Amino acid sequence: MVGHMAFRYKSMKKLKIAQFGLGPIGIETLKLASRKPWVEVVGGIDIDPDKIGRDLGELTQEPDLRGVRIFRSVEELVDHARPEVILHTAVSKVKDAFPQLLPMVREGINVVSSCEELLFPQLREPELAMELDALCKKHGARIVGTGVNPGFVMDVVPVCMTGVCRDVRAIHVTRVVDATSRRGPLQKKIGSGWTPEEFERRFIAGTAGHAGLKESLALIAHCLGWNITDLIETGRAMVADHDIITPHVSVKTGQCCGIHQYAEASRDGTVCLTLDIKMYLNAANPHDACLVEADPPLNVLIKGGVAGDAATVASLVNAAPRLLKSEPGLRLMTDLPVPCWA
Amino acid sequence: MVGHMAFRYKSMKKLKIAQFGLGPIGIETLKLASRKPWVEVVGGIDIDPDKIGRDLGELTQEPDLRGVRIFRSVEELVDHARPEVILHTAVSKVKDAFPQLLPMVREGINVVSSCEELLFPQLREPELAMELDALCKKHGARIVGTGVNPGFVMDVVPVCMTGVCRDVRAIHVTRVVDATSRRGPLQKKIGSGWTPEEFERRFIAGTAGHAGLKESLALIAHCLGWNITDLIETGRAMVADHDIITPHVSVKTGQCCGIHQYAEASRDGTVCLTLDIKMYLNAANPHDACLVEADPPLNVLIKGGVAGDAATVASLVNAAPRLLKSEPGLRLMTDLPVPCWA
Repeated sequence: MVGHMAFRYKSMKKLKIAQFGLGPIGIETLKLASRKPWVEVVGGIDIDPDKIGRDLGELTQEPDLRGVRIFRSVEELVDHARPEVILHTAVSKVKDAFPQLLPMVREGINVVSSCEELLFPQLREPELAMELDALCKKHGARIVGTGVNPGFVMDVVPVCMTGVCRDVRAIHVTRVVDATSRRGPLQKKIGSGWTPEEFERRFIAGTAGHAGLKESLALIAHCLGWNITDLIETGRAMVADHDIITPHVSVKTGQCCGIHQYAEASRDGTVCLTLDIKMYLNAANPHDACLVEADPPLNVLIKGGVAGDAATVASLVNAAPRLLKSEPGLRLMTDLPVPCWA
Repeated sequence: MVGHMAFRYKSMKKLKIAQFGLGPIGIETLKLASRKPWVEVVGGIDIDPDKIGRDLGELTQEPDLRGVRIFRSVEELVDHARPEVILHTAVSKVKDAFPQLLPMVREGINVVSSCEELLFPQLREPELAMELDALCKKHGARIVGTGVNPGFVMDVVPVCMTGVCRDVRAIHVTRVVDATSRRGPLQKKIGSGWTPEEFERRFIAGTAGHAGLKESLALIAHCLGWNITDLIETGRAMVADHDIITPHVSVKTGQCCGIHQYAEASRDGTVCLTLDIKMYLNAANPHDACLVEADPPLNVLIKGGVAGDAATVASLVNAAPRLLKSEPGLRLMTDLPVPCWA
């Protein structure tokens, strides 16, 4: 009776995938992809001269990747192999991603990117977004930005919940992440060990903190068709009340041990969307929560929260088959079919 | 900066919708649809001779529906107006829905249905499902089955959560519904006031209980590509430990006051999917919960649960714009873009 429920990709030819960006997240993404029975990894791309030309199997210690090379550019890669999807883990800003994405799109290659601003690129870079969308359509390519946050817990999940609402008045999302178990670069990005003033100065300069909170908010507003105003974001240091030592950082009492960022937007003069994230060392009660003021109201709690790095990597790889089912163009996560393990 | 986030449907021409089935859920669905700025209701269809020919505005007390008629059949409706989508709330079984859907599909009309088995029609009616799918493709129509359960809390939400998982080992979903606040027909369907033996006899005969639990399970398995075996379902009476009186039913201590249904399936000899639903009068601690044994693990709780009737109605109406974005054919909820209020 249930024999038709066989593995979806069994009959598919393998999906040819390449990895752009071989930092910690890129390597984990590549490793996960290489273990999927429906993936064939055809190459890596990185601008680091120490990596170019090396063997991905040797770099990642992943036996399945032996004999797969790291190239210096998309142009060089496609001389050797043509991926259908590139997993792009390199930058946070659309304006930095743009020159990296152009050669991919021109080759008609689809892109799943961890670039935070690509979650909703229309927000900060409407002209680049329009240009990417037009190029995607011209060359039959698709781009989507995703991850765990932005890309899932503070945007896709709240949007998904509204699917059973007759009316929606407001959405409030909170996330508390214990950064102690996260990777070193993230522990540094959240200002661990700086003075609180130093963090706040760098946050305002845009060189520290969590990227993508405004994009999450804008994506929710877009999906709900809400014409929002007064979109603001604040960022403050979480201050350590005890000394903290991790394998990556050392923080003394009174120093910054993480971030507290908050974004809100209004509609018709009333605050309708609030997103609140705390990400700090030794955080108490990590969780994700989403309150949808609606008919019916929804009160969602993910106990313990969604763990960051593993989930980001999974989100990228899992999005690839769904992206291919969508129309060419610059896509949003909410345009794709319901998220699903692949 | 956020001016592009204007109401999505503002520039769309209105979507012409008709309602098939004018019972309690059908009327609520129609009322919600009629209040949407992007909907134009063009007619109702019902087989009840007392309703045929009447005015929907008079039947529903909804001013916007004045002058819109109730027809006896799709054929009669399309002589007067051509809907792009029919909201179908009439039956629970695919074999009963099939003859109702045929004339819709043949006219190229898309259908959002509350028919529980349509959530995953391949499970019980693979041949009818293939036939519907072929006819949809031939005539450019789309069909999807949805609701709150099946259609959201015990299937779509768990699937959605796996989108951030590197690996998934098992999923356990539980739902507790306080039936006290639900509509009369539902309070009767769950056996209120019968003896426990009577309920269990009727459950086995397929004439009482919650429809769609196996479909929810099969949809999850399908999405995960799991080749499941030993798909079983059990149904038992919840027995009242005190006398209960609602506007619809009266239950004495020792009588049936609701249902406890459970479905499970195995993979490689190990139980990997369990779905557990209790729906009874004066239920304690109503909630929805989903435990995804995975990397990372996910522990989701919807406090208070997702209220049944309002959410079912919303799910149907909200699915219509997303269905139109999908390819013609018999579609699954998980094929459509991420659920969203519309």
